[in-house]
Amino acid sequence: MAIRSIRATVYYHLEPRARPRGLSLANKLIALVILTAAFLAILETEDSLREPHETLFVSIQLGFGVFFLIEYVLRIWAAADDPRFQGKRLGRLHWMLTPSAIIDLVALAPLFVTFASTGLYWVRFARILRILRIVRLGRMSRAFDSIIHALYERRFELFIAFIIAFLLMLFSATLLYFAEGEAQPEAFGSIPRSMWWAIVTLTTIGYGDVYPVTFLGKACAALIAISGIGVIAMPTGILAAAFSDAMQKRDDE
Amino acid sequence: MAIRSIRATVYYHLEPRARPRGLSLANKLIALVILTAAFLAILETEDSLREPHETLFVSIQLGFGVFFLIEYVLRIWAAADDPRFQGKRLGRLHWMLTPSAIIDLVALAPLFVTFASTGLYWVRFARILRILRIVRLGRMSRAFDSIIHALYERRFELFIAFIIAFLLMLFSATLLYFAEGEAQPEAFGSIPRSMWWAIVTLTTIGYGDVYPVTFLGKACAALIAISGIGVIAMPTGILAAAFSDAMQKRDDE
Amino acid sequence: MAIRSIRATVYYHLEPRARPRGLSLANKLIALVILTAAFLAILETEDSLREPHETLFVSIQLGFGVFFLIEYVLRIWAAADDPRFQGKRLGRLHWMLTPSAIIDLVALAPLFVTFASTGLYWVRFARILRILRIVRLGRMSRAFDSIIHALYERRFELFIAFIIAFLLMLFSATLLYFAEGEAQPEAFGSIPRSMWWAIVTLTTIGYGDVYPVTFLGKACAALIAISGIGVIAMPTGILAAAFSDAMQKRDDE
Amino acid sequence: MAIRSIRATVYYHLEPRARPRGLSLANKLIALVILTAAFLAILETEDSLREPHETLFVSIQLGFGVFFLIEYVLRIWAAADDPRFQGKRLGRLHWMLTPSAIIDLVALAPLFVTFASTGLYWVRFARILRILRIVRLGRMSRAFDSIIHALYERRFELFIAFIIAFLLMLFSATLLYFAEGEAQPEAFGSIPRSMWWAIVTLTTIGYGDVYPVTFLGKACAALIAISGIGVIAMPTGILAAAFSDAMQKRDDE
Repeated sequence: MAIRSIRATVYYHLEPRARPRGLSLANKLIALVILTAAFLAILETEDSLREPHETLFVSIQLGFGVFFLIEYVLRIWAAADDPRFQGKRLGRLHWMLTPSAIIDLVALAPLFVTFASTGLYWVRFARILRILRIVRLGRMSRAFDSIIHALYERRFELFIAFIIAFLLMLFSATLLYFAEGEAQPEAFGSIPRSMWWAIVTLTTIGYGDVYPVTFLGKACAALIAISGIGVIAMPTGILAAAFSDAMQKRDDE
Repeated sequence: MAIRSIRATVYYHLEPRARPRGLSLANKLIALVILTAAFLAILETEDSLREPHETLFVSIQLGFGVFFLIEYVLRIWAAADDPRFQGKRLGRLHWMLTPSAIIDLVALAPLFVTFASTGLYWVRFARILRILRIVRLGRMSRAFDSIIHALYERRFELFIAFIIAFLLMLFSATLLYFAEGEAQPEAFGSIPRSMWWAIVTLTTIGYGDVYPVTFLGKACAALIAISGIGVIAMPTGILAAAFSDAMQKRDDE
Repeated sequence: MAIRSIRATVYYHLEPRARPRGLSLANKLIALVILTAAFLAILETEDSLREPHETLFVSIQLGFGVFFLIEYVLRIWAAADDPRFQGKRLGRLHWMLTPSAIIDLVALAPLFVTFASTGLYWVRFARILRILRIVRLGRMSRAFDSIIHALYERRFELFIAFIIAFLLMLFSATLLYFAEGEAQPEAFGSIPRSMWWAIVTLTTIGYGDVYPVTFLGKACAALIAISGIGVIAMPTGILAAAFSDAMQKRDDE
Repeated sequence: MAIRSIRATVYYHLEPRARPRGLSLANKLIALVILTAAFLAILETEDSLREPHETLFVSIQLGFGVFFLIEYVLRIWAAADDPRFQGKRLGRLHWMLTPSAIIDLVALAPLFVTFASTGLYWVRFARILRILRIVRLGRMSRAFDSIIHALYERRFELFIAFIIAFLLMLFSATLLYFAEGEAQPEAFGSIPRSMWWAIVTLTTIGYGDVYPVTFLGKACAALIAISGIGVIAMPTGILAAAFSDAMQKRDDE
């Protein structure tokens, strides 16, 4: 009886679904640890920071790995209290196969990979996996839902807007390949090469590593740049409409 | 009778209009071939890819050309089942003069041009024509319609927004011609030259190949840059309004 | 009587207000001539075009000048038929003092300035004046009205958005002056100098002539860049709302 | 009695809350002085302007300091007429602890700091404090309120949009660290280093100080750039929806 009530308490504090609203202190602590682990994994890629503190970084990694392992074991144990799997046979195994539990398991990998790794490649791979932990934060929040819903409602219009943007990029790259290809073969000597210019220009990034220098190339690029305002304006307009409608529906309810 | 029913089947599978909803397997295959042909035409412009595999590329071109030729002949044959031209005399000729059929015919040109070409220019021209094939995909989809409708409804406001943007560009180019012309005659020595700067700046691309260096030029450019936020904001705002209204009407129906 | 009816005809064809809708052939011709004159005035600033054809350009200028002079005289004469000034004493003088008539008069200046000018400065000034002619096109169109109305309705919100953008620019310039001033005194050695960077960054132009190089400078700039998304988003959002409402009202009527 | 009525007049003219609408002449004068003081504080950071006129700048600073001191003393005195604190004991002290009064007091600091300062650092700090004076202008206007309200209403959606933008930046930085890290260790050799590129790219600033040069890096960057359109489009869409709704509610009332 005592163990049962401890398990129920653990479930209540670890599982965000168990509470009608808000996060428990334990959830907040776990979120903080995930963010810290992700932040350290990012910092660790910087050689000038990692090399003088190699042992420190490895120890912290180990600490976080053990923390996530304990949390994962506790969650398996408490999964018996999950109303979705409570009556079922092999309820815990069912829980382990839910997408969020699989992400948790994958996020544990770096702990073991660190020990097993012999080559540089795996260590790098482990690092990127650890960043996946941050994804778990998404599960703790019901907040993304409304934005995801608005995006989903207009997925079709957004897709067409991206197709139009892509076709304009292709057309621009082809045009500049003919106009500028001979003057700058390195940057515009083929349509795939021009494509880099077209994307950098039509998204209005404009690094300045490639730009037309001939009169014809500049004239074409000017027309493309002006018509390219629509490349940004169209998805923005569609999203603005989506959010406006989503909010109005929420207010009407 | 047998041939008639084969023709009806061919018509049903080749013509997207024949089906109330969705694309047939044949339509999807043709779309895939068009995309692949366009993709290869793009890759072919890259000398470092084409030169070692010249024969391969020519063979693939030939294959696609024959594929599109067969498709075109089949479509002429099946056009007799098109309800638009069914009763008419010379129904197939009428079909050949529809815009979509003309695009199909033009997209066949590269096949013959490849054989007939003697100079480099025509080969290049053939390549760009082949990219036109991708336009045919548009015909297969009724999806562009809603976006095109929203753009058409506000074509007037969008036109004015582009006129305002153009006038601001002209004004900016004139201002910088006076402010910066003497310091940088190569980039700002005339209004047409300054126009390149004005377009690159007001679309917020900002390559960095030309920018003012004098104090007066920078002061003018700063004011222009700030007021230029509206150049992007205005068409975006108009499009947002257009999509919002279009969606609301669709929901009301 | 005959002269009266000729004058009424001239008034009807020259004055866009005289017709309930659309532009007369004469209006369209004048608009075309204004655009051509403006286009030539722009081209003329390019020395490599003007110098070999100096006489041609001067002759065309003269031709346009005489054309606008005749038009202006005809308009004064026909102003007697303008219902606004018909009964009044000195009606034509009243007409000459309307803003649109003053713009017409100013646009005539280049004709006389070309002859009277002795120094280079005046010729340049004349050129910029001639571009003013294009402003007259605005008078011929009732199209700007709806956009101007939407902008006017939200002039207050737009003003605040620009104030916020300006304060953010000032704050960013101050921050980078402290963070980066010592490393790059030329570009960030004072707040006015940093201001150029702040404007180029927050409008997302990003020429690349100045950018932070120290770690602290980059960290500050990164935060500023992210918060600067709002600088573009805010006026766009306000304009989108303005156009959406303006269109809805138009549809409701 | 006479002093009381003078105090009431001073309160009426100094305190914007005392008037139902608009600003008194005294308020406008103070606003102008604040703006001028801020403008001079900005100019003073430019050595080429300050050094030849050191005495002039110090004198003007002193003048403004005394002006703000007198204003502050007058406001303390007149605070007795503030209806919020009129009946209370230590009403003036209560007034001094209101946020706006604290900002006023802090804005006085530069006056004393200028005299007391012995090192360069404090003078710089004093300058930045003086720019805080401009914040006081915000207090004089009820105009920010409507925009602040719209932002507050959607603070949640905006926060999520920024989280999504940040995660996309992190993902982009990680991707480019793997794709480009070996070719350009200086710019992409760690995730924090790549982060600078990711932020400059996804906000579409694109200075051009760092950009991918390998094929894999360019391919990744192209995909990131296209998906990054959403980074700008999402907050813009949310804000557009917020302003549209806020205006509609205002019109309905």
